[in-house]
Amino acid sequence: MANLQKPSPMPFGKYKSFFDRIQLDMRDRTWPDNRLTKAPRWLSTDLRDGNQALIDPMTVERKRRMFDLLVKLGFKEIEVGFPAASQPDFDFVRQIIEEDAIPDDVRISVLTQAREDLIERTVESLRGAAKPTVHLYNATAPVFRKVVFGLDGDGRDEIRDIALRGTQAVMKHAESMLGDAEFGYQYSPEIFVDTEPDFAIDVVSGVLDLWQPGAGRETVVNLPATVERGTPNTYADQIEWFIRNMPYREDVAVSLHPHNDRGTGVAAAELGLMAGADRVEGCLFGNGERTGNLDLVTVALNLYSQGIDPELDFSDIDEVIHTVEHCNQIGVHERHPYGGDLVFTSFSGSHQDAINKAFARREKDAFEAGVPVDLQEWDMPYLPVDPKDLGRTYEAVIRVNSQSGKGGVTYLLKSEYGLDTPRRMQVEFSKVVQAHTDGGGEVTAKEIWRMFSDEYLPADDASAKWGRFEILGLRTESAHTEEDEGGRHGERIEVDLRVDGQERTFEGSGNGPVAALVNILNDRFDLDIRLQDYTEHAVGTGADTTAAAYVELAVGDRVLWGAGLHPNITKATLKAIISAVNRAVR
Amino acid sequence: MANLQKPSPMPFGKYKSFFDRIQLDMRDRTWPDNRLTKAPRWLSTDLRDGNQALIDPMTVERKRRMFDLLVKLGFKEIEVGFPAASQPDFDFVRQIIEEDAIPDDVRISVLTQAREDLIERTVESLRGAAKPTVHLYNATAPVFRKVVFGLDGDGRDEIRDIALRGTQAVMKHAESMLGDAEFGYQYSPEIFVDTEPDFAIDVVSGVLDLWQPGAGRETVVNLPATVERGTPNTYADQIEWFIRNMPYREDVAVSLHPHNDRGTGVAAAELGLMAGADRVEGCLFGNGERTGNLDLVTVALNLYSQGIDPELDFSDIDEVIHTVEHCNQIGVHERHPYGGDLVFTSFSGSHQDAINKAFARREKDAFEAGVPVDLQEWDMPYLPVDPKDLGRTYEAVIRVNSQSGKGGVTYLLKSEYGLDTPRRMQVEFSKVVQAHTDGGGEVTAKEIWRMFSDEYLPADDASAKWGRFEILGLRTESAHTEEDEGGRHGERIEVDLRVDGQERTFEGSGNGPVAALVNILNDRFDLDIRLQDYTEHAVGTGADTTAAAYVELAVGDRVLWGAGLHPNITKATLKAIISAVNRAVR
Repeated sequence: MANLQKPSPMPFGKYKSFFDRIQLDMRDRTWPDNRLTKAPRWLSTDLRDGNQALIDPMTVERKRRMFDLLVKLGFKEIEVGFPAASQPDFDFVRQIIEEDAIPDDVRISVLTQAREDLIERTVESLRGAAKPTVHLYNATAPVFRKVVFGLDGDGRDEIRDIALRGTQAVMKHAESMLGDAEFGYQYSPEIFVDTEPDFAIDVVSGVLDLWQPGAGRETVVNLPATVERGTPNTYADQIEWFIRNMPYREDVAVSLHPHNDRGTGVAAAELGLMAGADRVEGCLFGNGERTGNLDLVTVALNLYSQGIDPELDFSDIDEVIHTVEHCNQIGVHERHPYGGDLVFTSFSGSHQDAINKAFARREKDAFEAGVPVDLQEWDMPYLPVDPKDLGRTYEAVIRVNSQSGKGGVTYLLKSEYGLDTPRRMQVEFSKVVQAHTDGGGEVTAKEIWRMFSDEYLPADDASAKWGRFEILGLRTESAHTEEDEGGRHGERIEVDLRVDGQERTFEGSGNGPVAALVNILNDRFDLDIRLQDYTEHAVGTGADTTAAAYVELAVGDRVLWGAGLHPNITKATLKAIISAVNRAVR
Repeated sequence: MANLQKPSPMPFGKYKSFFDRIQLDMRDRTWPDNRLTKAPRWLSTDLRDGNQALIDPMTVERKRRMFDLLVKLGFKEIEVGFPAASQPDFDFVRQIIEEDAIPDDVRISVLTQAREDLIERTVESLRGAAKPTVHLYNATAPVFRKVVFGLDGDGRDEIRDIALRGTQAVMKHAESMLGDAEFGYQYSPEIFVDTEPDFAIDVVSGVLDLWQPGAGRETVVNLPATVERGTPNTYADQIEWFIRNMPYREDVAVSLHPHNDRGTGVAAAELGLMAGADRVEGCLFGNGERTGNLDLVTVALNLYSQGIDPELDFSDIDEVIHTVEHCNQIGVHERHPYGGDLVFTSFSGSHQDAINKAFARREKDAFEAGVPVDLQEWDMPYLPVDPKDLGRTYEAVIRVNSQSGKGGVTYLLKSEYGLDTPRRMQVEFSKVVQAHTDGGGEVTAKEIWRMFSDEYLPADDASAKWGRFEILGLRTESAHTEEDEGGRHGERIEVDLRVDGQERTFEGSGNGPVAALVNILNDRFDLDIRLQDYTEHAVGTGADTTAAAYVELAVGDRVLWGAGLHPNITKATLKAIISAVNRAVR
């Protein structure tokens, strides 16, 4: 095991480890044995944390589109703004309340800092809402106490005091202005993951002692990883420890608020839920400051892919993307889980081959089980969820480039043109396609069809015709018995061929029209043709049905395939023979 | 705790849980107690798995640019293609060998399926390489055995046989064609995460028994999560179990190959390394089939942010992005960890304020410690790594929109224009900025400067001048004593003012020029001005130094700030007074 790597020139020594920030002995953790079995409570902060992070924050019009989308998707908890910090946020909260745009079962919340004048204005914005929550945060982590507030000593008392006075102010103003509503309270120690665990418990306990959670007192303690600091298991450890040590556990929803600085926000949420949290906060497709908030779409559809009801509706994911891109003016990346343009696409040959076979198997299994195919159990080699469940088609599932093998080509011929080519023919034709793709670029289904036509079918355009032979008219006559009657075969055909540009009629016989045509070609044109294999199937249904025939011929010392398409099944097969012969002498 | 959520209409019932696929009792797992302390071995598969997933796979020219970049970044293991499946891949492998483009300490590898003709061609492509590895994979998971191969029973024997015959073929052809090289072998059971753990051990054991790992026999067992199936802890459990049960542990590098279907590829790699793996495979910025391979940049810089040497050099991340985007023809998203355009940017007011203070503190600490500031310990509230370490500037760290507070405005005035405005003035000016940003959109540093000039400074352009007063000439005279001599103040000034368009000269005195000007304005123009506070600082250094002065005046019942800029410190202060007075009467 030789590691050849060299030291980096980068100044890594100036960083400290997460474990230098937070010491927590969690050798008795239980979360790794837990499994996710139900959806958490979801809170969308697209209109607050997401909006704050936009180069061009949403206008009231864009906010409203986002809000209506969130409601439609099934979100019941929506953080709608930071009204004391931004006039458009204040105006928007007033708009949705006054225009009665908030369904009865949706709770809205707004963020505020812990200053009384800001709290008063924040509560003011919520007047008239049926289920309003005030979300108060204050800075509890050491770097804030030391650097931002410049406090002496450990600064804990001053910080706890800010939280307590803020809570009292929320209670005072909420009772006076929101007395008729089911008002709730959410508290966040900022940044939870950087805060000494015992101090986080200390502050939260003080806050809850004032607020007094209980029946009818909607209460959320939110534990932000506003910056991801450690591997996601450290967040789960912190959450499990906190839950073990917090008071009022039964009456408080513990909420996760991961960000994605280390690219592990989704994992932090999942492990945090395993550690006992009740709720997650995030944004659609992970918008939010810097690397973004937790992506709620991914967490929800991860649950979905395990057979768990996400309690959100992403059955038209393209509409979600469209609205999110309009509101945020930021795109969803091609490879973004579940939503990206390429995430249900396979280019690799072996992946395509496996998907191709599994689709066929699935149709068969569904048919045998008498289940609609869309509800048949999903067990696909390279597709974790069924694109159709998200409102996508299978069109883009398989795309062909120079790295694709026969699987992709075969799939596209079948799904787009109804041609179910035999396996050995797939191998032959994929080489034709690969000779084109090695020059670079993707090949579309249409281009594959053009190559297939070029290679196997007579051109529609007379001037572009190629091949010695073309089959024109055909008349067949069957003997009354299938037996060979004294050298005369059971099937006689009369076929009009264009040969080297001249039309001529030939007669021949055999034990079927295929054998009869082979006999004609061998006898009259001194060819050495032996039929190896053939297969046919219908393309389309009803009056438009065409037969597709595939024939494998040995011609001299070569083996090659031909294809023919014709409404008459016999003629399709004979055309396939001519196709193979023409290719042999091409 | 009221959960108001409703069932989703989506057909979640058709999916099965990861735990229905893989049963593994890992209650005695140890990985959650482990910590990452060093970089793993890195393998880049940008040129193989990444390339296969491109709409337009790389040309040989683009492949070469990617290869040279990977070498420059410090990668010592590079998978360079799938030569038996693609002619451009074969040609590229030949090119880098024949042109001697592979440094002595870099090992290249190529992928092959387990068919002898493919293996022979694969090994052929490696002739002449100093450190070539053949990477063989075959399908081991039940869905392949059943659906893709259509095997009866459990199909294990047939599949094991394919792996063993493939291994023998690799050994035969490698010994005959690569006899002089330090050739290595890598084996991947596909898809490891879907394969029964005992069967994965069974196949790998058989393969290793044939290959015989040991000194000088470079050996890698790669355990792909080609599709992410479960939460990332399940991958770590599978890795720990596999390592416990595998033979030849000491002589084999265990390699992770996560994908990102659930958005947790980075987490899976990190937890998998904690579970004992030695190596990770992935691509730069997570290119690869569907949602992509593991993003190696993020894993490496996650280690970096914890003070661990990544053994890769990302000190010019923009060059990396530039090359990756050229080669892949796919962009890096704005919020992609470490690389995205917005990931070192804060728009939120409170974040900006904290960063602002922490930057100031850091400069002070570095100065006091006598350490270059770029090497000073990094402990920033909302920036997990120092943008400068990645070749970025601080320019984009703070950007201002309607959600920003005074912190961002203050930071930009200071970092871009050198103005260190006092705190109360920050509050005043941020309201001016916010009145503009509430209309929507981002405000640049230049626009902030224009607003500041507009608000506080006399216009350069005479036609655009505003304000009753403009200060022109100034002459000062100090008394010999600072005492008040019988009603005559210690400082006398003679100032030329333009007042309402007319130039006039005034005389006055006070205990300093500031007081003298205040006296002139109060006495001659019947104003009620009281000086509250003032501060000054130098802008720039040497001959270009200008003084910036800020003055807080009470004018009647209002309190407002003025600013003045002038090389002469006294004149700057007097201009600041005039600025405040003009604003008061504006």
